Amino acid sequence: MNTTRRTFFKHAGLGLAAAAGAPACALAAPASGGAVKPDAFTVALAGYTFNKFKIDKAAALAEALKKNPQATLKDIPDQTLEMLKRIDVNYLCIKDFHLPFTSTDEDIAAFHEKCKSFGVTGYGVGPIYMGTAQEVSDAFAYAKRVGVKVLVGVPFNPVEIDGKKKRASSPELLKLINEKVQEYDIKYAIHNHGPDMPELFPTAESGMELISALDKRVGLCLDIGHQYRDGRCPVKALLDFADRVHDIHIKNVTAADKSGKGIEMPRGQIDIPAFVRALRKVGYAGACSLEYEKDMNDPLLGIAESIGYFKGVIAGTR
Amino acid sequence: MNTTRRTFFKHAGLGLAAAAGAPACALAAPASGGAVKPDAFTVALAGYTFNKFKIDKAAALAEALKKNPQATLKDIPDQTLEMLKRIDVNYLCIKDFHLPFTSTDEDIAAFHEKCKSFGVTGYGVGPIYMGTAQEVSDAFAYAKRVGVKVLVGVPFNPVEIDGKKKRASSPELLKLINEKVQEYDIKYAIHNHGPDMPELFPTAESGMELISALDKRVGLCLDIGHQYRDGRCPVKALLDFADRVHDIHIKNVTAADKSGKGIEMPRGQIDIPAFVRALRKVGYAGACSLEYEKDMNDPLLGIAESIGYFKGVIAGTR
Repeated sequence: MNTTRRTFFKHAGLGLAAAAGAPACALAAPASGGAVKPDAFTVALAGYTFNKFKIDKAAALAEALKKNPQATLKDIPDQTLEMLKRIDVNYLCIKDFHLPFTSTDEDIAAFHEKCKSFGVTGYGVGPIYMGTAQEVSDAFAYAKRVGVKVLVGVPFNPVEIDGKKKRASSPELLKLINEKVQEYDIKYAIHNHGPDMPELFPTAESGMELISALDKRVGLCLDIGHQYRDGRCPVKALLDFADRVHDIHIKNVTAADKSGKGIEMPRGQIDIPAFVRALRKVGYAGACSLEYEKDMNDPLLGIAESIGYFKGVIAGTR
Repeated sequence: MNTTRRTFFKHAGLGLAAAAGAPACALAAPASGGAVKPDAFTVALAGYTFNKFKIDKAAALAEALKKNPQATLKDIPDQTLEMLKRIDVNYLCIKDFHLPFTSTDEDIAAFHEKCKSFGVTGYGVGPIYMGTAQEVSDAFAYAKRVGVKVLVGVPFNPVEIDGKKKRASSPELLKLINEKVQEYDIKYAIHNHGPDMPELFPTAESGMELISALDKRVGLCLDIGHQYRDGRCPVKALLDFADRVHDIHIKNVTAADKSGKGIEMPRGQIDIPAFVRALRKVGYAGACSLEYEKDMNDPLLGIAESIGYFKGVIAGTR
């Protein structure tokens, strides 16, 4: 939300009694202190939403250099940031295609500067899949270099199920992750994948089973769509595991089972108002990152409708 | 709103107490009757929003006939209806460029059929500017032929102010309009224009001054943006004149004076939640038609954000 948004018409209660009699309504701030407590959580976008807008930075830089011999990484176009600006969203969970793991400190600084020019803060990184101790170590080192305090991750062991190669939840890597969150003071948020990957953190509950004894900085990126598609209630998960929810993927879906598909937020089944009320109830202070997985080749319209809806629910439930 | 939207997670009150203890949360409807009373009002689009997407129907038909010798008006593309479908809005206030005053009954039937194929109902016509008794008569006859029960209009007298030709509110034509609403049983909704046109129904109040003694079917199309830009409270206008509000233009603006410009709904100053609560308070049963006047050459993204927001406020204030 635009924090400068005026609250002129924020009458007491419904405001109706106050408004009905006052000749000038509430064009001036109401006498009885109309300030609205700002929410602790932020509205953000999950970088994966822009999966089809990966930039080949080297090629884009070569192109930019043709027009401007002084061009640097800062000068190449970035469709993710352009889209965030158009929909007035200021926070991004950075995906590796925005900022590769191999980025130099200079690359990272240039990316942050570019984000800033669009009014955007990269608040976290991930989801990062990590299948070895080395990949866990690298991911934390990367998150530290990027300068974020949230790392969304998926620690897995390669397994074979029914002759197929799969990735399964890794209790072993979680032990190492437990050390890393303490070493780096970075929160680790396990992303739940729903019924499509029953062996790889399908639900918040399946994550909690493996981490409940660990440092509280090992927690969840609660994907409310996948949670719902697994027949679980996202509101309940947030209430039950509030102190472990370090990031949230907001979205909506068409059904409470595996057949559920991503859809524009007003059109799905999840009760978003109940979820927003729960965010306030538990004092959630992280990001609510829209992960929009419909029309990924042309997602902006659905993102706008969804972000508008989420902001409307935020305003309507105040 | 999608009326089939399930209310699985609609817990009693915040629903939090109910959710916290129940193992399966509220994936089944709550025992204590979770049905939400549907709103009497509808979410719509004001046709003027698509002012830059006028179709030259004759030229479009000629083009369509080249591909299909059996083509009729039903077969020509209609960007308005395509946009309504993309943003999941089912009601349209028809502007003359959608359906010219000279349309034959066959043209009108073809337009309604086309609307139906997009899931859209044309619920009203206008705004129609009418400067003579003949134009008033023609507008009512047109509205009847189109088959709508709401005619948004602007009855004016041509005047000269400071040497400039202007249009001023016409009490004389309102007398005729008072007869016509009785003859046709069609509601007439005067559109307020804000401070840009102080002589032509700038506010709801200026309309009410001229119509308060008339048949209640002579009423207002309350434009909440222009009302706000004139330093008035749209919530108060709705509460004060509820029985005269026959149509509403929803929108948001950047300032409570003439400098205020149209903007995406979450980003403006008008307290939309207070307005939606007032809609329910007075039992408003008409349309809330978004009239989006920013980026009119490329309005769809802002429309999506605005419609999403309005639907979010509706859901959040339930």
